[in-house]
Amino acid sequence: MSSEHNARLSALRAVMAARGLDGFLVPRADEHLGEYVPECAERLAYLTGFTGSAGMAIVLAERAAVFSDGRYTLQLAQQTDGALWERLHIMESKPEAWLVQHAAGRRIGYDPWLVSAEGLARFVGVEMVAVARNLVDEIWADRPAPPLAPAVPHDVAFAGERSAEKRARLGAALREAGQDAAVLSDPASLAWLFNIRGSDVEFCPVALGYALLFADGRAALFMAGVKLPEETRAHLGEAVTLAEPEALAGALAALGGKVVRYDPANQPVWFRNQLERAGAEVSLGADVVALPRALKNAVEQEGARAAHLRDGVAVVRFLAWLAGARGETESSAAAVLLAQRARGERFKGESFPAISGAGEHGAIIHYRVTEESNRAIKPDEVYLIDSGGQYLDGTTDITRTVWTGPGDAPPTVKEHVTRVLAGHIALAQAVFPQGVAGAHLDAFARAALWQAGLDYDHGTGHGVGAYLSVHEGPAGISRAAKLVALQVGMLLSNEPGFYLEGAYGIRMENLVLVQAAEFGAQARKFLRFETVTLVPFDRALIEPGLLSPAALEWLNAYHARVRDALTPLLGDAPEVVEWLNRATARI
Amino acid sequence: MSSEHNARLSALRAVMAARGLDGFLVPRADEHLGEYVPECAERLAYLTGFTGSAGMAIVLAERAAVFSDGRYTLQLAQQTDGALWERLHIMESKPEAWLVQHAAGRRIGYDPWLVSAEGLARFVGVEMVAVARNLVDEIWADRPAPPLAPAVPHDVAFAGERSAEKRARLGAALREAGQDAAVLSDPASLAWLFNIRGSDVEFCPVALGYALLFADGRAALFMAGVKLPEETRAHLGEAVTLAEPEALAGALAALGGKVVRYDPANQPVWFRNQLERAGAEVSLGADVVALPRALKNAVEQEGARAAHLRDGVAVVRFLAWLAGARGETESSAAAVLLAQRARGERFKGESFPAISGAGEHGAIIHYRVTEESNRAIKPDEVYLIDSGGQYLDGTTDITRTVWTGPGDAPPTVKEHVTRVLAGHIALAQAVFPQGVAGAHLDAFARAALWQAGLDYDHGTGHGVGAYLSVHEGPAGISRAAKLVALQVGMLLSNEPGFYLEGAYGIRMENLVLVQAAEFGAQARKFLRFETVTLVPFDRALIEPGLLSPAALEWLNAYHARVRDALTPLLGDAPEVVEWLNRATARI
Repeated sequence: MSSEHNARLSALRAVMAARGLDGFLVPRADEHLGEYVPECAERLAYLTGFTGSAGMAIVLAERAAVFSDGRYTLQLAQQTDGALWERLHIMESKPEAWLVQHAAGRRIGYDPWLVSAEGLARFVGVEMVAVARNLVDEIWADRPAPPLAPAVPHDVAFAGERSAEKRARLGAALREAGQDAAVLSDPASLAWLFNIRGSDVEFCPVALGYALLFADGRAALFMAGVKLPEETRAHLGEAVTLAEPEALAGALAALGGKVVRYDPANQPVWFRNQLERAGAEVSLGADVVALPRALKNAVEQEGARAAHLRDGVAVVRFLAWLAGARGETESSAAAVLLAQRARGERFKGESFPAISGAGEHGAIIHYRVTEESNRAIKPDEVYLIDSGGQYLDGTTDITRTVWTGPGDAPPTVKEHVTRVLAGHIALAQAVFPQGVAGAHLDAFARAALWQAGLDYDHGTGHGVGAYLSVHEGPAGISRAAKLVALQVGMLLSNEPGFYLEGAYGIRMENLVLVQAAEFGAQARKFLRFETVTLVPFDRALIEPGLLSPAALEWLNAYHARVRDALTPLLGDAPEVVEWLNRATARI
Repeated sequence: MSSEHNARLSALRAVMAARGLDGFLVPRADEHLGEYVPECAERLAYLTGFTGSAGMAIVLAERAAVFSDGRYTLQLAQQTDGALWERLHIMESKPEAWLVQHAAGRRIGYDPWLVSAEGLARFVGVEMVAVARNLVDEIWADRPAPPLAPAVPHDVAFAGERSAEKRARLGAALREAGQDAAVLSDPASLAWLFNIRGSDVEFCPVALGYALLFADGRAALFMAGVKLPEETRAHLGEAVTLAEPEALAGALAALGGKVVRYDPANQPVWFRNQLERAGAEVSLGADVVALPRALKNAVEQEGARAAHLRDGVAVVRFLAWLAGARGETESSAAAVLLAQRARGERFKGESFPAISGAGEHGAIIHYRVTEESNRAIKPDEVYLIDSGGQYLDGTTDITRTVWTGPGDAPPTVKEHVTRVLAGHIALAQAVFPQGVAGAHLDAFARAALWQAGLDYDHGTGHGVGAYLSVHEGPAGISRAAKLVALQVGMLLSNEPGFYLEGAYGIRMENLVLVQAAEFGAQARKFLRFETVTLVPFDRALIEPGLLSPAALEWLNAYHARVRDALTPLLGDAPEVVEWLNRATARI
């Protein structure tokens, strides 16, 4: 591995020098700035070996660094060569600070398709030079071709609103904001707006493409024609003009004099550059689809509940099996869970690579089992499984942490688990007024850990799509999240954790829907969370004395609800029902 | 009142027209953008009648509006004439939105001394025109003269660090940031940096002036010479050059080519304009004094504890007296409290106008009793008293809410009080890692209210100075506060509340110092709050069943601490000791 990456790094440096550049940025990003990227955009992994979902490399002539966040600290050290790369925590060493420290005033190349306007603006004190072709692509001889999977219509029975209605509604919002058109570069925005789905990337059912939405509700979709079967063209209708992605530059050039909405945080800076060159007025604003997409309508909420019921059945069958299994590994267990999900109706695949971490592997926050890392799940240890499914009616994401037995869990493990669970429950029970953002509630999920001097190095919750991306903006429950007020219909994860490096990891994750809280005649609107995930928490890891009476009551009521909801769906498996009865017995 | 304000408004409109302006801004601000302003800067009150501590008027030819926040909703309606002024809640109707709605593209005058660069930047869609002389001053015939109280040295025995050391330390910070000098326009910054105090404004012991701090630790102080007695000149020393405020423009003009730090959020835009005109490079950054001033050193922390001990004695004497008093009024009660404080050593005056609100007056969040509003404190009602003292060794700010008796408080009142107290205690007990800001903890103080669909329309906590302003930046505990990480030595208020309009107000306020929390060998640093205020909460208003066992334990331990600390200081007053014993008895 190492000599291969050494050769690639040398080749990149040679191309840099030939282009008159002193450095080059290699973010983990594709041309849509999405999280799940096609193989052809895995430039960071190709260059460095690091396969995490977030990170960036900076290559200079004489030194190079690769940055990622706390989720990937261990993985970064394992996958990259310390002789080639400084490995840095992105919160402690900012790439822009590192760059100006080591290359002040120098010419640094970047690919304008792989960085947003805000991302680019962070690099000050150096001369940032846009390249016409990505330098990594120049050295990547066997780079895979872009995916060309078909885009298919997504039934309004699942979407709950027709594309024409969505476009009319958002077009009206553009008119109100004095904007003539909006750029769309997030494939999940296309998927939501046009009610289409695809399979260009793993885990997220989108078709890669771009679009322009106009204030009159019409739109232009830029997507390879071979990806659009006749049925999809008919579904899109005449108000959506179709063109190849190569036509995008020309279409933007025709917007001179128009006011065009561009998202400086989430869209490639290439768009802004093209619009400015065309003489369009760039109006900065969030992706016009992002907030409407996050507010699940009644049909999508019902779909989320239905999907979570089937997902609950699959996970409970898996946990019941696991309780009796011996000699299994992280890989084989994850495969059994996938097989259980695949039995369910409307299942389309996993929503992300399952994190199946036994013992010390659980402490690697975004662990992904590989052939090399796979290990046995042993007796009397902590096992963490974070996984999710894509169903036609909804996306799921759940983490459970279990004790493999047959002995009792040590008291310190139970204390750690129960503090995480106390945080999970505090957030699940939260009631809060309209206007509050997730950043303001994050501390609820941490307070029980903080009281013991403990914490976890990741956010508490992320948005989740409706048969779309399992990580969806604009709202989140994290101090780092943007201050987006929570609103009815948002679907978010509630996933506090705790990680003891080299020993075990704990995470307790359910998905929750934001709902109105009713208090009679109140001047102010209040909100609360409806938990939609339906799987018990492992009683063997809970120390009831550490939970408040109200938290214990929540837990018992939740377990009763899980049992009542799932039992009728487990008629074929009396042994699973028996396990479920034990797992949900009152504490 | 009304015809007087009508005449003033007409006069201002005439001056506006004569200057070719379509409108004029009248913020509640002085030339230092401070909260407590001299009489000569009370332009908003002169023009509109509104005497609240935050607000703004906008006058157009045909309409006018006055804006303030939720603390002042009732007061604004009472003090201003609805026939002359639209009265608007500044969070619901932003002045800048109102202005562009009613005067898009028009010429709007403003005084560059009374608005920050950020404040000015909010006004888009109109032409903002700086005036050389404030238009209100032109019509204000009997405008008071600026105050000229002496500036006196503040003993290092209270300050804990010599001015020369502070200047050297901050000068080094400027050098590190590549800055040659920093603008200082906040009199509290001058007071801290030079270890001087004054009495130019009520409640805040500052001397009005301006300064430039240079990277070599030298400084220039711009303050009327008549305010600087010989002792103060000697204290300032030779490294601080003295000049009249009129010399400021010339001094800024001499900074061409220098990098000068300017705070766009808190300093008059006049400075930025002058620096740009001079050809200086304006480097945006917070007032260089603001953060160091907030981090109380060991001497200041000890001073805060000592001042709160004396303040606790005064407030407890007052509360014991109040319990037996009959026929008192809001005014007479506040006067008794002030007299008790004045008995204490090192007392210099109130830190803000006491809020003495009986019954429905308590619901006016920043109520100030006047001759007209003063009313009797009646039996069997809720009485709220929010007050504070300026002592040479510290500034105090405390609110207590009491039941006047002799009957029992109604259950709903006790429920409201106890939910507020539960929030107060949750914050007092909080433990949190370094990096957390007050905005992230604000929800702890509200959760118990939120669970019942209740809330309060003000922040939970503000910074407090060391014998300086009772409202001090940069940290606060509020969703609206800037994300300034809490650090050891910050002194903040903890003051959740609840207000039932027309009935009563509840607020529970102590001051807390941020301290390190010790957990043995932890990777991360944790922080906690040390409560320094020492006065019991009224047991007659507490419903113990609504507090968690941990909260009740905190309350009992706090009451025991109050009793143990104050009893030795009440040897002259056995009846007060008796009251204190009853007030702090275990619940």
